[in-house]
Amino acid sequence: MAQLTGTLAELGEFGLIDAISSLFSPREQVLLGPGDDTAVVRFGDPVLVSTDLFVEGRHFRRDWGAAMDVGHRAAAAAMADVAAMGGRATALVVGLAAPGSLPAQWAYDLAIGMTEEAAALDASVVGGDVTAADQVVIAVTVLGRSDHPPVTRRGAHVGDVVAVAGRLGWASAGLAVLQRGFRSPRAVVDAYRRPLPPYDSGPQAAAASATAMIDVSDGLLADLGHIARASAVAIDVRSVDFTVAEPLAAVGAALGVDPLSFCLTGGDDHALVATFPARVGLPEHWTAIGSVAAGSGVTVDGADYEGHVGHEHFR
Amino acid sequence: MAQLTGTLAELGEFGLIDAISSLFSPREQVLLGPGDDTAVVRFGDPVLVSTDLFVEGRHFRRDWGAAMDVGHRAAAAAMADVAAMGGRATALVVGLAAPGSLPAQWAYDLAIGMTEEAAALDASVVGGDVTAADQVVIAVTVLGRSDHPPVTRRGAHVGDVVAVAGRLGWASAGLAVLQRGFRSPRAVVDAYRRPLPPYDSGPQAAAASATAMIDVSDGLLADLGHIARASAVAIDVRSVDFTVAEPLAAVGAALGVDPLSFCLTGGDDHALVATFPARVGLPEHWTAIGSVAAGSGVTVDGADYEGHVGHEHFR
Repeated sequence: MAQLTGTLAELGEFGLIDAISSLFSPREQVLLGPGDDTAVVRFGDPVLVSTDLFVEGRHFRRDWGAAMDVGHRAAAAAMADVAAMGGRATALVVGLAAPGSLPAQWAYDLAIGMTEEAAALDASVVGGDVTAADQVVIAVTVLGRSDHPPVTRRGAHVGDVVAVAGRLGWASAGLAVLQRGFRSPRAVVDAYRRPLPPYDSGPQAAAASATAMIDVSDGLLADLGHIARASAVAIDVRSVDFTVAEPLAAVGAALGVDPLSFCLTGGDDHALVATFPARVGLPEHWTAIGSVAAGSGVTVDGADYEGHVGHEHFR
Repeated sequence: MAQLTGTLAELGEFGLIDAISSLFSPREQVLLGPGDDTAVVRFGDPVLVSTDLFVEGRHFRRDWGAAMDVGHRAAAAAMADVAAMGGRATALVVGLAAPGSLPAQWAYDLAIGMTEEAAALDASVVGGDVTAADQVVIAVTVLGRSDHPPVTRRGAHVGDVVAVAGRLGWASAGLAVLQRGFRSPRAVVDAYRRPLPPYDSGPQAAAASATAMIDVSDGLLADLGHIARASAVAIDVRSVDFTVAEPLAAVGAALGVDPLSFCLTGGDDHALVATFPARVGLPEHWTAIGSVAAGSGVTVDGADYEGHVGHEHFR
């Protein structure tokens, strides 16, 4: 790893590309990595592909975590989308738009964080683009593959069990803490800075005949709303099935909010939520939290949830 | 097509996504289009993948062309990267970061332009992301395939012929005109607004044993510099082989610049430049403009070119 001094303007576009490219140790499936017009990646057909934008001041703040954390978060969010189809991320391409005044080390550390997160799945950063802009914007596109037919949002059936894998509410509690200028409890702040999506649980759910799946990025109730709408069903969540962990209870008490709201409306953990036929056993690490019925909409204990259930941009 | 009134803030993220998604008529190879965690695309293995950022005020200006033109340009630039490997674009994913005050119709027209440009190659927009930002940033990732081994930048050999396909300098002359507040000659302004990359010439060059290839995005001399560096060779360009078209001569005369400079240093046409073994005949639409020798660097008529040869971000 390199220590870079100075700003992007001082290092220059090609200097930054040179420094970053050495980070990307290509895996076996990468026939050609960064540095040409396109990368060339060997795949099992078909290819899963998804793209996400991360905007400074909206999706991250430079004073809320290190650049390496931002890299981990951005790569994790993208790779969780592939897990939510039942697949496994294989390759990432990354665009970085940033002001010339950005410290070059920040961009470099961002790339380190992304490559570290990708390496957890033996995936590679295979290409990218850097350009000048007024604000830092990170564009992450992930490619992946699956041994199973993709698990969409459309397949939930009446009578299915709703289950989650991964943590809910931790990152959201961490964000609430950071927004108020605090840095503790450390467990929730760390959960926000470096989410731990349950990558393996996606393919396991696909193998276990999951009928619909999504990663929790807008908030559990909002994302279950996407499944309910796409599948034309109603979903009810049972609050008794949620264990509110101690750090979430502590943050809830300190901020005067119901800690369950972090679990129901927070999105940054990238947990997976899926529906399974009632007759199949849930895979390891999946916990039942509700059920699918005829109708429309998402309820908690049979009633509409009071409060803001998700995030919508522009508004 | 829809007429959208109001701003992005009024329409909302999901309203915009609904309006845009109806534009993307999936091709046969698209097993699952927009609206889920990832798209699913059938491919011939391997996959070519590249990502590009377009930033308002740097890569486009809203007063220099319609949103549809910006969509065409952004998709063309991405798909030209695939052509420059000898391949053919198959699928695009697009991220749009924009202020809430952006007219919703602008975002919609942008998507129309991209889908139109993609349709020229029977490619599809298969997914995307929209989010709020201070400045319009468009992130385009293209996936493609090829029947031939990818033509990289590294394979140029001493004795090879250097040849181009597509127009050089037209878009650059158009940009020079727009930067000075003019709107004519119309031919060069249109060339800037809607470049015409020679998509078919990439696969044809690959079939004809091209040894190295790149699309001209930084400027001919700068992009030949990428080939020279990657291939560890020297490249000489013969100015006599360039025909300066009448509109370029007119712009050169009006602005007091050598019109050949548009051809040598302008990038927005997305022409292709490649090297071929001297023994093979050039494919149709390819024109010889120089040769590969031992050494390093790029020269014009055996001498260093005086002037600014390409664009570098941040500086």
